[in-house]
Amino acid sequence: MFETAELGAKISREAFDAAAEKLRLALLALQDRLREANFPVIVLFAGVDGAGKTESVNLINEWLDPHWIVTRAYEDPSQEESERPSFWRYWRDLPKSGQIGLFLSGWYSRPILWRVYGEIADADFNYRLDHIKTFERLLADDGALILKFWMHLDKKGQKKRLKALEADPLQSWKVGKQDWRNWRHYKSFIDAAGHAIRRTDVSHARWTIVDGSDERHRSLTVLQTLHDALVRQLAERQAKKPAAKLKARTAPKASVLSALDMTQALDKPTYERDLQEARADLAVLAREAHARGISSVALFEGWDAAGKGGAIRRVAAALDARHRQVVPVAAPTDEEKAHHYLWRFWRHLPRAGHMLIYDRSWYGRLLVERVEGFARPEEWERAYAEINDFEDQLLHHGMVLAKFWLHITPEEQYKRFQERDSVAYKKWKLTDEDWRNRAKWDAYEAAVHEMVERTSSAAAPWILIEGNDKNFARIKVIRSLADRIRQRLARS
Amino acid sequence: MFETAELGAKISREAFDAAAEKLRLALLALQDRLREANFPVIVLFAGVDGAGKTESVNLINEWLDPHWIVTRAYEDPSQEESERPSFWRYWRDLPKSGQIGLFLSGWYSRPILWRVYGEIADADFNYRLDHIKTFERLLADDGALILKFWMHLDKKGQKKRLKALEADPLQSWKVGKQDWRNWRHYKSFIDAAGHAIRRTDVSHARWTIVDGSDERHRSLTVLQTLHDALVRQLAERQAKKPAAKLKARTAPKASVLSALDMTQALDKPTYERDLQEARADLAVLAREAHARGISSVALFEGWDAAGKGGAIRRVAAALDARHRQVVPVAAPTDEEKAHHYLWRFWRHLPRAGHMLIYDRSWYGRLLVERVEGFARPEEWERAYAEINDFEDQLLHHGMVLAKFWLHITPEEQYKRFQERDSVAYKKWKLTDEDWRNRAKWDAYEAAVHEMVERTSSAAAPWILIEGNDKNFARIKVIRSLADRIRQRLARS
Repeated sequence: MFETAELGAKISREAFDAAAEKLRLALLALQDRLREANFPVIVLFAGVDGAGKTESVNLINEWLDPHWIVTRAYEDPSQEESERPSFWRYWRDLPKSGQIGLFLSGWYSRPILWRVYGEIADADFNYRLDHIKTFERLLADDGALILKFWMHLDKKGQKKRLKALEADPLQSWKVGKQDWRNWRHYKSFIDAAGHAIRRTDVSHARWTIVDGSDERHRSLTVLQTLHDALVRQLAERQAKKPAAKLKARTAPKASVLSALDMTQALDKPTYERDLQEARADLAVLAREAHARGISSVALFEGWDAAGKGGAIRRVAAALDARHRQVVPVAAPTDEEKAHHYLWRFWRHLPRAGHMLIYDRSWYGRLLVERVEGFARPEEWERAYAEINDFEDQLLHHGMVLAKFWLHITPEEQYKRFQERDSVAYKKWKLTDEDWRNRAKWDAYEAAVHEMVERTSSAAAPWILIEGNDKNFARIKVIRSLADRIRQRLARS
Repeated sequence: MFETAELGAKISREAFDAAAEKLRLALLALQDRLREANFPVIVLFAGVDGAGKTESVNLINEWLDPHWIVTRAYEDPSQEESERPSFWRYWRDLPKSGQIGLFLSGWYSRPILWRVYGEIADADFNYRLDHIKTFERLLADDGALILKFWMHLDKKGQKKRLKALEADPLQSWKVGKQDWRNWRHYKSFIDAAGHAIRRTDVSHARWTIVDGSDERHRSLTVLQTLHDALVRQLAERQAKKPAAKLKARTAPKASVLSALDMTQALDKPTYERDLQEARADLAVLAREAHARGISSVALFEGWDAAGKGGAIRRVAAALDARHRQVVPVAAPTDEEKAHHYLWRFWRHLPRAGHMLIYDRSWYGRLLVERVEGFARPEEWERAYAEINDFEDQLLHHGMVLAKFWLHITPEEQYKRFQERDSVAYKKWKLTDEDWRNRAKWDAYEAAVHEMVERTSSAAAPWILIEGNDKNFARIKVIRSLADRIRQRLARS
């Protein structure tokens, strides 16, 4: 697959200059249009050392308006980065709509090098590549334009280039021992890269293999490819797309939720006793998790007035304030709106040993956004898989994940709305929106059923809380969370 | 000063319940009004362990709408936090307008404990306290409401409280060795705290000393104080304030800028040779700084078309892309707008060994915001001191700071505007705004003069670049930046 890129294509200065000016103008105009469009551009550079990755990034920064370009290059993860799933740092750096993000030594570099040096086996390599595919797929589905460049040199060409750099006293610092070590492993490197490229060369995130031996040829190839892709993407986005048809489907009419025994209750003395005990148990487990650097994410979803706030406060009170944080999920800020909907949840992921409590969560995509039409059907339809994958990453990193659905019956909700309306200091909790949501109970119920069905797994089950009795609900929340942590502690 | 808080004030359950409901309602209503107002609230809790700091924070979260409350508690800084000035983590966590931020173990805790255990001397303690004062002053000037609570117990009271916690099997985990160690140092602790409180008890950031022995009394005191302060602040913000009069002042008509020799130039061969040399020199120094964990901030200001972009690209190209980042400063996002204007610059501060290049910077406050009236006179007037203090923190942390002013004459600017207008691929760089700014050359010039005068110091001088000749300017930028790094490397 690299043969064409080893033919030593060249282009004369005259031909370059003639093509360059036109291309440069066209790119500037496209960048203007991109700013008005609502998608980001992700350009990733990988390849042979010395084949012009950095030079290409610099050229793009020179030709285009750098105010709308974000350049990122990666080295070994910092401590804080290591404390989160490996894609956390890429998520943080993703460009927003209208921006072009240039990534050097991005998500392919480390898996490829690990494979070359035998630090991971084929199966693990494939696992990581598939994970990359999922990541790119999710961004592309959200509208991102993704371009991947493999900057190529053959083994002789790389040697020549490294020697030339070494001979230049002004550039010799660019060549280190590791570069020569990589060069000696040229064949394994190219084999691993070839495998990676074949496995991840998909229509929404194409690889372009660039002959890196001639600077002018290489530059034109990269910029022309960027140009063409921008033209195509802008045209596609402009063409009115017919709303994607969802496959004919039967919405689940019932789920395990329907089987809950909603009459369960605890009397006050039992509650008081159990609360003390459950909280102490949770506190001990949380301290142990902190000591062992295990972090947790607990999220709370549920009907309006189901008691999320009260449950969260009781959980939080059992924990050391330095090691837990409650994040209420409200309307997104403009930065958040200019990113993938999962971006703002990645943002807050807890450090090692810390617990993050989400008051509402990414499941909003499958609940309010679905029912109210804020997300299009194809958007929320693919969110099931996106969310499952996101949670897999948390679990794979060793985090505890506890997902609570606080359930109440419509009758109980009505009672609580009435109470909120009549108790002065509770009135603020009741808004017109609550009544409007209540009117759509059936639509929400269908969405909840489907969410619970499709996003429960053995590793990340929904914990359903019978919430008609607040005492019962709170004890069950605290005990379930404690159990999730206990299971995790037992595992390692 | 703690005597009154040791009288053991109590309040009966009946009196508490009667007062509580009214207070709770009033606070909820105030919180509503706060959301509409354009200032944040910062509530800091310090004091004797066991005196109810955490409990107060939990109560505020229970009584008020937690969606507009941010709670933060601190332990020892993480690696990434240690790599920035010590206030970085507090800046990151500051509440935005409309929010209430609750801070536990905040910026007072560590200096006080350090003093108690002799890790810092009196002079250093005072230095840190003054630094805190400056921090709080800056936030208050920007409209923040700041409340500080010292939760108090006398030595006997604390012992009793710790013993009680220890005796309770459900709460004994809250008491550790360090708590008893602190208790044995009670007197030094109270002495250091008393000193800190006296030194930092100022009208815009008052301390309230709270008798922590009775839970009901303590809770009412905290919440009533918060209530009263909110009422006052909201009323004050509503009252139309007359524009603050600036002291009669003579704007500087000239500065060192006027003395620049704007005819300096480099011919092309000299430039090419010098560029190679200067870049190699900078590259070597930057790698050395990276190896030693020294980070740098380079900022670029200058007239429109003065050549900032070109200079930045040439600096960036000399540096390892993994260790530097260019941040163009554009219009603030809505999150940024809801914070102090320095917040967004704190946000990006580089990790150890990294270089951050700002294309425009916090000096916008003293330039465009001043001239265009985006900042009120009293706002930009106090910004000189705020900025000097901010930069002091960077320097104190050991960072390299290089501030470039790219200077051109009005004639040269006119020439460049014309050129941009006529060269197709440069046209995007020229906007109507550039012409409008040009028309205000005199006002901008006065602002520049004053900025250079008032924010240059031996440690953070403005580096003035004679920019009429681009070759000369670029070489001087690269060499000056290299010199700044060299000086820093020589120091340690």
